[in-house]
Formats: sequence, C-alpha cells, structure tokens
Amino acid sequence: MKTELLCLGTELLEGKTNLDSSYLGDRLSMIGLNLDRITTVSDHLETIKKAFSDALNASDIIIITGGLGPTFDDVTREAISEHLNIKLVLNKKILAGIEKRFSKNMSEMPESNIKQAYILDGAKPLTNNHGTAPGQLLELNDLKKIIILLPGPLRELQHMFEKEVFPYLKQFETKIRKTLTLRVCGLSESDVNQRILSIVEAERKTERETVSFTILAHQMIVDIKIIVSAQDEMLVDEILHNLKKEFEDVLESNVYGYNRDTLESVIARLLVEHKKTLAIAESCTGGLLAHKITNVPGSSMYFKEGVVTYSNDSKIKVLGVKEETLDNYGAVSEQTVLEMARSIKDIAKSDFSISISGIAGPTGGTKDKPVGLVYIGLVTPENMAKSFKYDFSGNRIDIREKSAVYALDLLRRELLNYKPQATKKKKLVT
Amino acid sequence: MKTELLCLGTELLEGKTNLDSSYLGDRLSMIGLNLDRITTVSDHLETIKKAFSDALNASDIIIITGGLGPTFDDVTREAISEHLNIKLVLNKKILAGIEKRFSKNMSEMPESNIKQAYILDGAKPLTNNHGTAPGQLLELNDLKKIIILLPGPLRELQHMFEKEVFPYLKQFETKIRKTLTLRVCGLSESDVNQRILSIVEAERKTERETVSFTILAHQMIVDIKIIVSAQDEMLVDEILHNLKKEFEDVLESNVYGYNRDTLESVIARLLVEHKKTLAIAESCTGGLLAHKITNVPGSSMYFKEGVVTYSNDSKIKVLGVKEETLDNYGAVSEQTVLEMARSIKDIAKSDFSISISGIAGPTGGTKDKPVGLVYIGLVTPENMAKSFKYDFSGNRIDIREKSAVYALDLLRRELLNYKPQATKKKKLVT
Repeated sequence: MKTELLCLGTELLEGKTNLDSSYLGDRLSMIGLNLDRITTVSDHLETIKKAFSDALNASDIIIITGGLGPTFDDVTREAISEHLNIKLVLNKKILAGIEKRFSKNMSEMPESNIKQAYILDGAKPLTNNHGTAPGQLLELNDLKKIIILLPGPLRELQHMFEKEVFPYLKQFETKIRKTLTLRVCGLSESDVNQRILSIVEAERKTERETVSFTILAHQMIVDIKIIVSAQDEMLVDEILHNLKKEFEDVLESNVYGYNRDTLESVIARLLVEHKKTLAIAESCTGGLLAHKITNVPGSSMYFKEGVVTYSNDSKIKVLGVKEETLDNYGAVSEQTVLEMARSIKDIAKSDFSISISGIAGPTGGTKDKPVGLVYIGLVTPENMAKSFKYDFSGNRIDIREKSAVYALDLLRRELLNYKPQATKKKKLVT
Repeated sequence: MKTELLCLGTELLEGKTNLDSSYLGDRLSMIGLNLDRITTVSDHLETIKKAFSDALNASDIIIITGGLGPTFDDVTREAISEHLNIKLVLNKKILAGIEKRFSKNMSEMPESNIKQAYILDGAKPLTNNHGTAPGQLLELNDLKKIIILLPGPLRELQHMFEKEVFPYLKQFETKIRKTLTLRVCGLSESDVNQRILSIVEAERKTERETVSFTILAHQMIVDIKIIVSAQDEMLVDEILHNLKKEFEDVLESNVYGYNRDTLESVIARLLVEHKKTLAIAESCTGGLLAHKITNVPGSSMYFKEGVVTYSNDSKIKVLGVKEETLDNYGAVSEQTVLEMARSIKDIAKSDFSISISGIAGPTGGTKDKPVGLVYIGLVTPENMAKSFKYDFSGNRIDIREKSAVYALDLLRRELLNYKPQATKKKKLVT
C-alpha cells in the first residue's frame, strides 16, 4: 500500500512549522506504511484539487491534513467533494456535537461552524475530542483507494489518529517492520560515521535489502536509525538485536538511549535507580535546564529545586557566591560555577547538583571571554566538585541549548559510572 | 517565477520535523517568491531524480535541501548530476576548506568528506560556515531554470541562505509583497473569526485580489496574517496600514504584537519602557517561564531572579511559604500562589513578580483538584496582589505551555494599563 500525505495550508508554505507531518510520518512508519511523499500546497480550492489528483494517481492511501476548520479559508471538504464528484451531506449527529461543545463553554455556535458538520457521502466521520472539526475516512472501493481527512491542529489530529485511524490502518501492515534509533551524545556526525562505516558497509555487501540506516545530527545529538523489515518477525528481531550490539561496541557509552529516550528521561531512570536527588543553579540557560528536567513526568521524585540566578546580585544573595569570587574571576568562571553548584546542593540538600554560567550573547562577550564560553559545574553525593569549560558556537538559542544538553550529558556519564561505596572508600584512601 | 522546495531525507518521512521548509518558506514569502509547493521524498537516487524532474516541469526556481553530507546516504549531488547530465567536478578550493575545518579541530579529514568538494559543472559553490557541505547555485540558461542545493541542517542552511541565496533571489522580486501578522492572545480561533468576519468579507467584495488573509491558531495564540501584493509600494503600505487599524479596532488589546513578536519580547519592551524589573517563582512549569523570559536577548536588564520550587519543601525553605498554608489549602491554591509571588518579589527586590502552581499531570490530580488546574499569582510594584485560576486541557506539555503563555499574557495586560502615579493616588483615595 503506497501511502502519501497531503498537507494543506498557505501558512505551511510561508513559515509555519509542519508538526502534523512529523507526527504522522513517525506513527505510519511503525506499521510499515512509510510515507512515500509529503506534499504541502496552499488551501485554495483548485490547488487542492490538483494536488489531490496527483496523490490519487500515485498512492493507495492518501491522508490529507488541514482545511477542515470553520473559517473562510477552509475548503478541503469542498475540494475533495468536487474532484471525486461525491456530494457533502449534513450529519445531524455531528452538528449536535458541535453545538454541545459551544454550549458547554456557555457560548452559542457561530453560523460558520455549520459547514463542519458536512461529510462526504459514504465517509465515516472521525470524532474530534479536542475541537469542532470532525475527520473523515472514505473507502473508494471501485478505485481501491482510501482517503482520510484530518484536522490541521496537531492535538486534534493526534487524538483522532490514535483512536480511530491507526487501528484501522493496522490491517494493511503486510511486512513486519521495526526500527531502532540509537541516540548518541558526545561525538560529531563525522565521528559517528567513521566509527560505524564498516558495519554499514558489511551490511550493504549482504545485499539482503532488509536493512537500511539513516544518520541524523541535531544540536549535539546524533541519531542512527536502523530499519529492518521482513515477513518473519523473529528474523527482524534477531537482525535488530545483532546490529544494536555491533553499533554499541563501536560507539560505547556515547550511546545514551534509544528511540524516544531523551537525555533527561535517561537521567530520570538513573537517578531513580540510584535513589538520588538533584538540584540546579542556572545563569545563561535561564531555566532551560530545569525545564528539560521537569518535562519528565514524575520528576518531582528526584528534582528538588532550581534557581535562575541571572544577575551577579542574585548569585550573591540566593546562592551566597562570594563577591570576591565574582570580582576576581567573573561570573563566567570555573570558580563561580563551582560555588554555584556547591551552594545549591547545600541549600536544596540534594545528592547531585549542576550549575551553568556562560555568555549566550549576542552581547556581553569580551576578547578573553567571548560569546559561547560556558562553564558547567557538577557536585557528586560525595562532594566531589568538577567543572567543565566549553566554547560553543552558534547564536543565543544554540548556545543555551548546547549548554543544557552538555550539562545533562555530564550528569548522565557521572551517573553511569556512579558507585557510591567504591567512591567513598577511594576518598578515604587518598 | 514559480518557486518550489524539494526536501530530501528519509528521516523527514519518518518523524523528523522539517525546520528547513518553515525557515525558507518564511524568508521567500518576504520577497514575493512564495513557495507553490513543498515536496518531501526519501534521499534515494531514483526517488530524487523523479521528484526533481516533477519540480523542473512545474517551477522556475527549485530549491533542494539535504543529502549533501559526507555519509553513505547523501546522494543529492549525484542525482541532479545524472538527471541534468551535467558532470560533477572536484573543486580544490572547497576541498582545501574542508580539510582546514578538520585540522582546526585537530583531526584529519575522513576520506568520505572528499565527495563534498564535488560541484555541478558551472554551478557557483555556496560557502558553508557551519559545516563541511557547501551549497550550489546553478543557472540553467537554456531551460531558464535556477537550481539551488542547500545542506539539510538548519544552521548550515540558514547562514548560507542569508549570505548568498537571499541577496541573489531578490533580483526576481517583481511585485512588492508585504505581510503583516497580528498576534492575538486571549481569544479563541472562533472568537477571532467572528470578530474579523465583516472586515474579511468587505475585502472579498472589492475583488481587488491584492489582499489575502490566513488565520492560524496554536496553543492559546491566534495569528492573523494579512498579505498584500501590488506593483505600487505606496498602495501596499496604505492597504496594510488601514487593515491593521480595522483589525485592531475589533480585536482590541487582545492583539499583543506583530510578526515575530512574542509575548516575552513584548513584555521585555514594556518592562524596559516602565523601567521595572521582574522575578518569578514556578512550580508546575518547572523553569519554562524563566526560560521563555530569558530567551530575549538583554533580559538581564529586567529579569532579576527565578526559582523553581518543585517540592513543598522548597516552597517552604526557599520562598518561606507557610506550612499551614500548604496544609490548609494545598500547594495548588490561591493562597499558596499569592505567598509565592509576594515572597519572590521580596527576595529578589523586584518591581513585579509572577508565580505559577498547578497540576501538569499525568498523575497528581484529584477530584477536587484535577490535572490542568493552575493558579497564577501576580504582584505589582504597589504590592497589589492578584491571583488567577485556570482549568487547562491537554497533556503535561500542553498544560505547562498554556500556563507559561497565560502568565506572560497576564503580565502584559498589567503592564499595558500600568500607570504608577495614578495607581498610587487611587490607592490613597479608596
């Protein structure tokens, strides 16, 4: 079954990020219905009809997003209706549902919303629990095509897709197709490529065509995706298992996780495993590190406290960083970052602590301390304090992101090697 | 000049968000070279050739992103070369540049990077300051087509586009085309639509075809984009100016900004204007609000301090929230959020303060206090303390995002109406 996605919306051509396509692409690839093409065009009637016609020629399953809203520029229903010559019929149950949504919010349904209750004749309406626009699923039995209309806003689409579309599409899963993404932090894309090249080339030589790879680098993270598809699930699992081991052997502890693992979710697991808590003190990252850490559900188990000490003043008052440290070494220095980490650990009575101080720019850089200079401090439960110095490139957003990612990776590596007893003994000996 | 974008990369079909297309779409629309289509296909040789052929038939300017890297799955150069029957030639200057990049990082260039120095015969290489893959710009004079190859990673593409491609493309700007986005917070998409409908319909009736609109809703923000294009710049400016006024009249202070304005950048302007400072205390948003505020360059001018008091313990210790308040009313309550806001204002000696406490979920909700219940506290320079209660829908990420956005909007509305003298007088009178 060839599957393609048609995204409608002038805004998607003029700068709006397409989140629907990444979501749907990911979910569809899980059941082997990989998208062959994503086409984005404007939501004008004739343009939609043309793009839909192209898609209908090329693919068996056509998923269309956008243009189901109540506003004047929502004409997807009309375009598909006209092209297929299938009339739109008013669905009273859906209309009642839309009216109910408005009355629940103590308001009357605007007249423009009525059009959302029109459904292609023969289509199955898909319930929208997060908005007024229902989706539609139409099987064209004579053409052997399946047309699925989904609303544009991701949260509306997502719920509908998971509840009704994904279970429906699972019937077309012919091959078993599994993917595994190895997530790497601490190596460049080129480094990763060099390390895995012999594995990739050996796989190519087998010509079995069941395996493919992609490498993707984004802000300090390199993802290697292994895609295995075959009729025999046991074979798929075995190949995946072996390749995973081969990659891990060459990439070592730079592999921080798999698939949807994030550095913060891996740290969460490690902290819970070790029964340890964390506190952080941020300067240039301004809350980004705390935000990442608390994005993980259940983070209140190990995250005790964070402070954003943006000014020297608050570094002194809140964290008790010494004025002479700031005077002698500056806010962006090994000394300051270590005092910050030690202090927040004491204040929060946490086991681990991390601190970040740096120059995110665009201003504030000097010859000695240029934009991109970042110090990260880390204190262990045994009060071993370490500091790390980085010279990051990029703009303000990049530097903040890289700082937070590296801080997380430093903590991860610390936790990986963390053996409370051994460390304590060692300290007594030295 | 019809312009289209071809994005290459299997990862873009399997879940990776396409940031290149939103960036390029936005920039191109500024000079009236609006994208007619964005097509995403996998980076296999034959697939690229087919998609490129389609694009070549339909458009005058074809921008292609991705597949210029050093790894085994980067074959864009080869595909275009084969389809156009133009050979790839080694550019020694580029090769030297790539080698220099590696030697700067104290490492040797892997052999695989050599392919990046091959350029389509006759193409202009585009310098990559953030990576090893150069771009290429090829004018096909006989076919009257322009082909532009750009690397996939956004930071590499961006720099190259701004420095060499955008200035080059500006020669094709035939019409003056300007856009204005009004950014709205505090009204639903349907509300916005109802309010502006008569303006939109009046414009439709003129049939002048110089004006179009799009409405786009995302997480509590509704964007109305006005697009005006005509040959006469004065006419464009006049229409834009008049429509802006008409929209503002019906949307009132719900319009928080224009184009790339964010709530945090608007707040930045207002705080600087009033010479006021800000401190914040967050619970459920876990640093997100501080992160947003400090995303604005220069935020150290007005942002004094932030704390993430995630546990009851830290609310007591860091902020001095009374134990009996937490016992009697709970951490998610009007009383707690007011104590948090008053306390952080005192600690940081700031003019304004905001606090947030809520239940972001997925767990932690009760019948009385369900997931989505969020309190926001705000204290003014005159020590007027206000609290606001919300019942947000969505998942953990949604609830955190909505909480931060609403907190910013509350502060914005407070600052808009802020008149220090008048408020003081009023307080003395009552």
